[in-house]
Amino acid sequence: MAKQERAVRTRRIFLEAAAEVFDEYGYDAASISVILERAQLTRGALYFHFTSKEALAQGVLDEAVTTLGFSPQTYKVQEWIDLALLLAYRLPREPLLSASIRLSVDPKSRSLFSTRWPDWIQLSLDLLATAKERGELQQHADPATIARLLVGAWTGVQLVSSSLPQQPDLVGEVSELFALILPGITVPAVLTKLDISPRRPERLLAEARPEQDSPALHEGSAPRS
Amino acid sequence: MAKQERAVRTRRIFLEAAAEVFDEYGYDAASISVILERAQLTRGALYFHFTSKEALAQGVLDEAVTTLGFSPQTYKVQEWIDLALLLAYRLPREPLLSASIRLSVDPKSRSLFSTRWPDWIQLSLDLLATAKERGELQQHADPATIARLLVGAWTGVQLVSSSLPQQPDLVGEVSELFALILPGITVPAVLTKLDISPRRPERLLAEARPEQDSPALHEGSAPRS
Repeated sequence: MAKQERAVRTRRIFLEAAAEVFDEYGYDAASISVILERAQLTRGALYFHFTSKEALAQGVLDEAVTTLGFSPQTYKVQEWIDLALLLAYRLPREPLLSASIRLSVDPKSRSLFSTRWPDWIQLSLDLLATAKERGELQQHADPATIARLLVGAWTGVQLVSSSLPQQPDLVGEVSELFALILPGITVPAVLTKLDISPRRPERLLAEARPEQDSPALHEGSAPRS
Repeated sequence: MAKQERAVRTRRIFLEAAAEVFDEYGYDAASISVILERAQLTRGALYFHFTSKEALAQGVLDEAVTTLGFSPQTYKVQEWIDLALLLAYRLPREPLLSASIRLSVDPKSRSLFSTRWPDWIQLSLDLLATAKERGELQQHADPATIARLLVGAWTGVQLVSSSLPQQPDLVGEVSELFALILPGITVPAVLTKLDISPRRPERLLAEARPEQDSPALHEGSAPRS
């Protein structure tokens, strides 16, 4: 393994260990020694990549706005739906993503690092504004309001569903949320063409190539069947 | 002041002090001494009412499902909307309410005390199930799904809006959320009669009598103009 490749892998191991520990203990109670124990690597290796707990938390949050599995669609509204469904599918499977929500709702961590919600709102707004220009949305639909409210609604649906005894499946919940909202914002001709199936994100991820993360949002060209 | 009246007042002072401290520090970092300092009452008085930090947190959560300002309406959907708007109006003004959200999103506190979300979901479900029976909802609308998703959406919209730099007004946000969702779930004849104005909760509270808290949900008869 090349030196640089090993460094990338080591960095990733620390981020994932830190994410798990932040997720379990919260930011305040998370300690470097527990993170080291989880990562099973040396303190020296850690400090080469991250000089403090703060740097680890920032590293976790930096990984949180991700568009893996995303690919261009006929309708911009579909791309917006895809972002939300993909994140719902990946979150319970990836500690880095659940830790970033945990850090965002933790007021101490939030005051130190802020949250990634504004980035998600901006990403949604870009897609919805184009959708509006293309006539996919109803006249009265305001892209900025919808973008902001849906990032909130998505986050709360995740929090509440994860706390309920029967723990409803997050992708199913987000799909139901779109079923409630889309009739009020998209034009009927587009509405009938949209796919909000809970099985969609798994299919999108299977079709995506690994190198297709974030930059692909504006440049991606993965084939869609 | 009668002895019992004084005891009720003292208990309330401790709950509000605890709520402020939980809200600022989180459950783990909150300490009895800071709560005492805030309440400006003696340790003996505290222990007469609450034997531990756990008991204080439980007391705060017990106050969190509240229907002050709620009164019977022509449409059950309107009563459901009123619950959400009233809470949105009161939350930024009442530390007991914001602390209960803080305790619900804090995983440590949540594992100790669970959350009040199931109660809110049940309250919403009762109203929506009756609305459905009365023909206020569209055929495909499922009261259980809508009740669950809206409690989540409301919570997340509160969390995200409170974190944004421009801090949009919570009542305005919740009103916009209903504007997105109602066209997809209520029948058109009812939709036109619903009031989701951000100024509604303030008016409802002004009309409510103080003794009209929780029990009024099923028995209330406050006059509506």
